[in-house]
Amino acid sequence: MIKVGIVGGTGYTGSELLRLLALHPQAELKAITSRGEVGQPVADMFPALRKRVNIAFSEPTFESLKNCDVVFFATPHGVAMAQSAELVKAGIRVVDLGADFRLKNTTEFERWYGMPHSEPELLGQACYGLVESAREELKKAKLVGLAGCYPTAVQLALKPLISLTAPLIDESNIIADCKSGVSGAGRKAAVGSLFSEAAESFKAYGVSGHRHLPEIEQGLELISGRKMQITFTPHLVPMVRGILATTYVKLSELGKNTDIQALYEKHYADEYFVDVMPMGSLPETKSVRGSNFVRIALHRPQGRDTLVIVSVIDNLVKGAAGQAVQAMNAMFDLPENMGLEQLPVSP
Amino acid sequence: MIKVGIVGGTGYTGSELLRLLALHPQAELKAITSRGEVGQPVADMFPALRKRVNIAFSEPTFESLKNCDVVFFATPHGVAMAQSAELVKAGIRVVDLGADFRLKNTTEFERWYGMPHSEPELLGQACYGLVESAREELKKAKLVGLAGCYPTAVQLALKPLISLTAPLIDESNIIADCKSGVSGAGRKAAVGSLFSEAAESFKAYGVSGHRHLPEIEQGLELISGRKMQITFTPHLVPMVRGILATTYVKLSELGKNTDIQALYEKHYADEYFVDVMPMGSLPETKSVRGSNFVRIALHRPQGRDTLVIVSVIDNLVKGAAGQAVQAMNAMFDLPENMGLEQLPVSP
Amino acid sequence: MIKVGIVGGTGYTGSELLRLLALHPQAELKAITSRGEVGQPVADMFPALRKRVNIAFSEPTFESLKNCDVVFFATPHGVAMAQSAELVKAGIRVVDLGADFRLKNTTEFERWYGMPHSEPELLGQACYGLVESAREELKKAKLVGLAGCYPTAVQLALKPLISLTAPLIDESNIIADCKSGVSGAGRKAAVGSLFSEAAESFKAYGVSGHRHLPEIEQGLELISGRKMQITFTPHLVPMVRGILATTYVKLSELGKNTDIQALYEKHYADEYFVDVMPMGSLPETKSVRGSNFVRIALHRPQGRDTLVIVSVIDNLVKGAAGQAVQAMNAMFDLPENMGLEQLPVSP
Amino acid sequence: MIKVGIVGGTGYTGSELLRLLALHPQAELKAITSRGEVGQPVADMFPALRKRVNIAFSEPTFESLKNCDVVFFATPHGVAMAQSAELVKAGIRVVDLGADFRLKNTTEFERWYGMPHSEPELLGQACYGLVESAREELKKAKLVGLAGCYPTAVQLALKPLISLTAPLIDESNIIADCKSGVSGAGRKAAVGSLFSEAAESFKAYGVSGHRHLPEIEQGLELISGRKMQITFTPHLVPMVRGILATTYVKLSELGKNTDIQALYEKHYADEYFVDVMPMGSLPETKSVRGSNFVRIALHRPQGRDTLVIVSVIDNLVKGAAGQAVQAMNAMFDLPENMGLEQLPVSP
Repeated sequence: MIKVGIVGGTGYTGSELLRLLALHPQAELKAITSRGEVGQPVADMFPALRKRVNIAFSEPTFESLKNCDVVFFATPHGVAMAQSAELVKAGIRVVDLGADFRLKNTTEFERWYGMPHSEPELLGQACYGLVESAREELKKAKLVGLAGCYPTAVQLALKPLISLTAPLIDESNIIADCKSGVSGAGRKAAVGSLFSEAAESFKAYGVSGHRHLPEIEQGLELISGRKMQITFTPHLVPMVRGILATTYVKLSELGKNTDIQALYEKHYADEYFVDVMPMGSLPETKSVRGSNFVRIALHRPQGRDTLVIVSVIDNLVKGAAGQAVQAMNAMFDLPENMGLEQLPVSP
Repeated sequence: MIKVGIVGGTGYTGSELLRLLALHPQAELKAITSRGEVGQPVADMFPALRKRVNIAFSEPTFESLKNCDVVFFATPHGVAMAQSAELVKAGIRVVDLGADFRLKNTTEFERWYGMPHSEPELLGQACYGLVESAREELKKAKLVGLAGCYPTAVQLALKPLISLTAPLIDESNIIADCKSGVSGAGRKAAVGSLFSEAAESFKAYGVSGHRHLPEIEQGLELISGRKMQITFTPHLVPMVRGILATTYVKLSELGKNTDIQALYEKHYADEYFVDVMPMGSLPETKSVRGSNFVRIALHRPQGRDTLVIVSVIDNLVKGAAGQAVQAMNAMFDLPENMGLEQLPVSP
Repeated sequence: MIKVGIVGGTGYTGSELLRLLALHPQAELKAITSRGEVGQPVADMFPALRKRVNIAFSEPTFESLKNCDVVFFATPHGVAMAQSAELVKAGIRVVDLGADFRLKNTTEFERWYGMPHSEPELLGQACYGLVESAREELKKAKLVGLAGCYPTAVQLALKPLISLTAPLIDESNIIADCKSGVSGAGRKAAVGSLFSEAAESFKAYGVSGHRHLPEIEQGLELISGRKMQITFTPHLVPMVRGILATTYVKLSELGKNTDIQALYEKHYADEYFVDVMPMGSLPETKSVRGSNFVRIALHRPQGRDTLVIVSVIDNLVKGAAGQAVQAMNAMFDLPENMGLEQLPVSP
Repeated sequence: MIKVGIVGGTGYTGSELLRLLALHPQAELKAITSRGEVGQPVADMFPALRKRVNIAFSEPTFESLKNCDVVFFATPHGVAMAQSAELVKAGIRVVDLGADFRLKNTTEFERWYGMPHSEPELLGQACYGLVESAREELKKAKLVGLAGCYPTAVQLALKPLISLTAPLIDESNIIADCKSGVSGAGRKAAVGSLFSEAAESFKAYGVSGHRHLPEIEQGLELISGRKMQITFTPHLVPMVRGILATTYVKLSELGKNTDIQALYEKHYADEYFVDVMPMGSLPETKSVRGSNFVRIALHRPQGRDTLVIVSVIDNLVKGAAGQAVQAMNAMFDLPENMGLEQLPVSP
């Protein structure tokens, strides 16, 4: 049994970890910490866990976590950075669901997150946790900066297309028009996330610059080994869960002469969680809700040169807690789908 | 392995059965029928099942089902009535998620469902499938008329209160003000169930008379052995899943002197799926979404004589497909929670 | 032109007042105050008002308001209490959309609102602003404690029934099962009002005691001259606007022999905003959205003794800002529907 | 007073026309037709209109409409085509809210709508009703093919940018990623528009080809006099009303050296309904709900060459019934905002 700790269990990614781990046959929750809630049973805060999760919150100290094999950070940025070194030194593997170990460039980190990076050395060792790209590296990783939600949806949409040596698309002009449910904003009291603000309305946000932009560009470059330039526009959908990315690329001459659908199907043939739908399909976010699946479909409107790639994930599962468990499975040499076999809840 | 057949798999209760059975370690789906969709893979209609459910729809004939141990009917009323006799005769156990075998009185059935009951004899043998009340009977049952969604929520809210010999409440004046998500209306094209009709709005329906009224009164009488009279008002909530019942009863002198909270806790102490929350709690439907749980809380506002019981279920799970699987487990002597251990998906 | 001031314009009732007053042919907005936003154009906070409302927030001082004929308080409780005396003394009429001048009994006020009432004398002069009951009194009122949202829906549902000398119902046993959209919780950052908490879920709240309970009982007693006892249960609906009240009463012998539908139609025949629908109708909240209408329908299920009254309002209009404008019209001898003629926005 | 007729009043655009016309000081509704509902009061179908709209449906014949000055068609395609000639010949002006008179090329019409165009001559006289572009032409127009909902949002987003002689953008590579509420699908019973299908989910549709694509390209060419090529992807948002278009264009050298914000502000300075927000603003659909406004904001992410234009409308108002009334006002030389002054209902 893998002994698991969670730091910061009062948000949506934390409670989603609890939901998934509760049924994982090889994981045993040893500690869940929250400074503000020490002693409170987790199920008092999340009644959905009543009768099944009987642990209480403990102090966010090393002491609480020292007997774990792996610790998940489901915390705002800055927290994992401050606490990981001690854990890693003690041989405890760390998976940060936050942003502290995603951007390799500390200058970029400071620019987008507004704080200096206090652990550049640790950052150097961190594995960027997009599992479909990183599973070999994960086996030995001591520290994982799990891929963000939007970056997961966009990178998996583009991965087959940019993995070849010769460019199939204009890589300087990618557009990712992304849409997310409101749970992506977390369980934090904020006027903009109120029901009455977000319901029955739709808006773009972060158009001029969103923290996931540098992460996506870095991730695509990691996959392709080439420079990529992307316009990334996130939008807020009046739903709780789900991300849909509509990605537009301009095909190169080579791209126009390639069977892109076949390329995707072959690329993802062995991936348990990636579903390449038939060309022209229309994936819906509800078809992955509550599950770790990604569904992807390709379109080439009017037979013109623009390829449209539509991808969907559940932002709290494949975009956070599910991918974290998948990463843990890869790290501990378990089947990647262990504890992640739930089918989507639809409708 | 239990060999399972489903008749009418194109609705929400049918697809929910597929979701639950796909992970049931002792069930094997042998056939799913639909007259209109013969040959079509189930996953083409329900993309949420892609990669995991590989069966196609077959003809709704005895031939398709004859090798099953149990057949679920997820059909409009009238269908199970027409096809069950042949199955039962062949020794196949039948669970009807519809209404054909709920009301024991054929006159009442005709009055509320507008068609004569063609199988009064079969009806006489049918077990009324509210599992918490019927598990002993289920062990031998050949035919089960599964409890309806509202009736499940209301009966479980009242069961401890009416199980004693002496009445704790005025049993001629019970009010059940019930609220359901729109999936209760099924996957049937109808103007009233359109998104633009149901979203951002709230209404009562069936106030003057709803088919679940006679079922609830019959069910309460079955539990108590006494005549009960209830005012039942269903409402439509702009959400997909969930039922919340707010039940009002007037305490008798005996009732006022009874520790009702203790009574409920004791009554349900051994029930895996029933969660009696602390007095004064406020159960939310999302705390049971996607799961087979029932959560119940008691209130006695202002210390007056009116007791308010709030109960929540997922109408597609405990109110339909989940209770059907729970009933199957009881019928085949399996642990009742087998295949039903998923935690609620919340938020 | 009536010169209007608004204190506390940063919430939903404040912005709704702006929407309604902008089209009122006899009202002129002179000042809108907000301590935190002095100098900021109102339309920066509420982009829906851009191009049409050009005023900026000013200091919440007497100075800002001294040239007004009427001042609306759209503030948390306590604020109107502290500031009204000075305005009233200066001959400015005050309409409090909050709770400071609703409950006549200061002990009750303290019990439910957790603060002493600092203006018992002023309270004595205050008119309880349920316009359909109070229009004569409003003509001379200097200070109005506008009826709350739930109390408006419930009182108008019961008014015809309790206005006669002889009781038509058991007045000690009324049940009002009420449901409200989330905007009723205001524009205040709070976890419970987050989209991800409230969407796709339904719950009861305040079951054990809600501040509107004493207001409803007081209001019913004001109408009938008799003691009334009510069980009031509010619920939260995943929609922005709208209240639906399902009120259950037990008919007396006299009530059973009365044509209740005719009673309601006659009672409300001259009310512009009250729509008594045909017996058995099913009013929906969307049929009043954005408007000042109330729709009411009666049901007598199974011909038994329980009468069910369903009433709907838009909580921000008839339940707050619309009724405030209607009260202003009554106070200044204008047609009550002036500026309130918009039809509901549906769907 | 303008005497108005409506053909096909049982859908959402028809009922929205009723809502708007009921308050129009110069319009008088003379007839509303519906084959299936002859004799039924309109308010029985749309309770939101009770107490204010007292007309009943009449036969969809010339007889019913012959005394009108203008007739609106709120019908599926094919209907206006069949009935307009007779009306136009009789000197009655016609505004088709459907698609029969939008596409100038009958071959394109047949390709996208699957039926031959029976009135090519009439089509030749039809004015394409994007009011901001067509108001001069509207004054004399006998027949108007009103702009569609998506085309209105996209064309107004691009109009200032393509109105100059020299191209500011790469006009062969425009991407319009559009999102619409479900009311755009109409009030027609269809499984895909059910609440349980559309709620809590997000999807693209018509990616490979949507009828609004040729209309948008034609409209842009009409404005610019140049060939345009657009990739248009519509998406379905779980909300009732609203369209948001996110339009991506690549700036030319000239474009990069132009103050685009100033260009937009100047271009739309005199437009009552078009609101150019400050650069970098984030318009939300709820800021125009129930109103005829369009709000537009510009972004240039990372200072790169891609300009992002975000525009929002209410699809039932500016995208249909509101623009129809605005067109009528232009046709009859009334102020364009007459009867359209309602402020948005938000939240």
